[in-house]
Amino acid sequence: MTNNFNGGFASNFDVLGIGNAIVDILSFADDKFLQENKLAKGSMTLVDEEQATSLYKKLGQTTECSGGSVANSLAGMASLGAKTAFIGKVKNDQLGAIFTHDLHAAGVYFDSKPAENGAATAHCMICVTPDAQRTMVTYLGACSLVSELDNDEALIARSSILYIEGYLWDTEEAKTAIRSSITLAKQYGKRVAFTLSDTFCVDRHRAEFLELIKGDIDILFANESEIKSLAQTEDFDKAVTFIRGKVKIAAITRSEKGSLAVTEDTIETAPAQKIANIVDTTGAGDLYASGFLFGLSRGWNLLECAQLGNKCAGEIITQLGARSQKPLHALVA
Amino acid sequence: MTNNFNGGFASNFDVLGIGNAIVDILSFADDKFLQENKLAKGSMTLVDEEQATSLYKKLGQTTECSGGSVANSLAGMASLGAKTAFIGKVKNDQLGAIFTHDLHAAGVYFDSKPAENGAATAHCMICVTPDAQRTMVTYLGACSLVSELDNDEALIARSSILYIEGYLWDTEEAKTAIRSSITLAKQYGKRVAFTLSDTFCVDRHRAEFLELIKGDIDILFANESEIKSLAQTEDFDKAVTFIRGKVKIAAITRSEKGSLAVTEDTIETAPAQKIANIVDTTGAGDLYASGFLFGLSRGWNLLECAQLGNKCAGEIITQLGARSQKPLHALVA
Repeated sequence: MTNNFNGGFASNFDVLGIGNAIVDILSFADDKFLQENKLAKGSMTLVDEEQATSLYKKLGQTTECSGGSVANSLAGMASLGAKTAFIGKVKNDQLGAIFTHDLHAAGVYFDSKPAENGAATAHCMICVTPDAQRTMVTYLGACSLVSELDNDEALIARSSILYIEGYLWDTEEAKTAIRSSITLAKQYGKRVAFTLSDTFCVDRHRAEFLELIKGDIDILFANESEIKSLAQTEDFDKAVTFIRGKVKIAAITRSEKGSLAVTEDTIETAPAQKIANIVDTTGAGDLYASGFLFGLSRGWNLLECAQLGNKCAGEIITQLGARSQKPLHALVA
Repeated sequence: MTNNFNGGFASNFDVLGIGNAIVDILSFADDKFLQENKLAKGSMTLVDEEQATSLYKKLGQTTECSGGSVANSLAGMASLGAKTAFIGKVKNDQLGAIFTHDLHAAGVYFDSKPAENGAATAHCMICVTPDAQRTMVTYLGACSLVSELDNDEALIARSSILYIEGYLWDTEEAKTAIRSSITLAKQYGKRVAFTLSDTFCVDRHRAEFLELIKGDIDILFANESEIKSLAQTEDFDKAVTFIRGKVKIAAITRSEKGSLAVTEDTIETAPAQKIANIVDTTGAGDLYASGFLFGLSRGWNLLECAQLGNKCAGEIITQLGARSQKPLHALVA
């Protein structure tokens, strides 16, 4: 549980992630609250500072917990036993210190320079409804400052897999940073993983995502809605057919229907485990990626990767927030 | 769940609390961690900024949640259905905004002016061990700035009970503020409640606490260790005899042995309920006070007050942190 990780790694990283550095503000809410505030259940909405402040005032009691999709995945992977590193942007403020602490405490290497000026560290207000669904409203703040300057060629060279979240695809600076990090990773012969993150994210950036995917993505993470949105179809099987061959591996989650690992030649289906006490689905997709990428980094077959993904997702939904309060390594068996 | 409480109250408050305005940083730890960091299990240690930073680096994954002993009690009382108000000091920073939000979201009136300069909003690192005990390390920061200027005579005049935490008894300015608020409360014919807070707190301030108690306290909250420390005896019965008549009511908690309401003439004993799934004892004493003071504000007899205190304490120890994620009003029956 020591966290003096920065500078302590001699060996390589299994996964380097680039993503939004976010502190989650978790709050229980009902469907009426979502309707009144025009929030689509299960989605992630980006807001400006004023909208964020206005919604925050309406939230009930909160609990704060570090978040960020790729950061959550890396924390999960580290708990499983992988060596991971993160690139992302916080401000030098209290939420930034919390985010940084928690990532270090999880055992993730993170030394991106915090911004000294400008917008505050990002926060994501997560409304958890009685059905355990999470609906997210994000103020990106300092995250919007991610630029090519944050790319660390040495880190990319030292990592086996580069993992990037679609959520990051926002400013032109971030897009340039993502493209150049992928180019670097490819030059070093690394694998590149990408998550579609959210259906609205896919809607906003479909053409660019498709271009990115066709060229450079080895492993694509998506849930059922996201892959259907990408393929612009309501038919799941058509969406699967659409993505086959466009990426080496598509890892697709379907909640209680389990998950699929799709390649050009094969489809591996891993049924979901029955979870009795679902508290909060925040982080289910992120922790699925933890398990899947951990398996890949260990040379497991795709079914085994998907099964560990399911187990990790199954564990996190019994807890509030997307960072497990229990170590996950017992799930590796 | 609306939180536009400030300015909205026409009627009086059942309880006005003065206490430290603190955000809790909760983390699971083992006994070895406590030993290595020389922390006495179950206690609260005050540290300076440097010590706080040093310990924070060693903590594992954290969850943040608003805290502060009296603030927790007020939030609990509000959830039970009481009208409550708080006086305390945050800085105008991110943790201060979180503390303020959560108190408003709980339905507690709070409009103490935040400090614009100086130390940050207080935080308390809470190490929860596998036996569910909590050990606390507090950086008081902006809380140390509480002074007589923060006393709000109008709030005192509008409230039935003034409730003050022993934890606040730190700087000379805070002591002066407490004494003058008690004097004001007495002038307005109000009842005054006080909690001993912590055995180390009693050890540090025994003589002053005894002087305060003999003169002005109507309701004293203490746990078994604190009352024994105050009476300087290892014998619980002697401690009870010691306190009888010194305050109108002593409400004494004994964990799994339940609680006692002691007056000069009577002792009411309320057995504890069996709690199967204890997660974290943080807030047990604070929520006991919620139930007890709620009962008093409704004119209940002392046994009923103690029983509701037990119920509220029993509920909070099944959750992480000292602010209930579930409404408590169902416990009033």
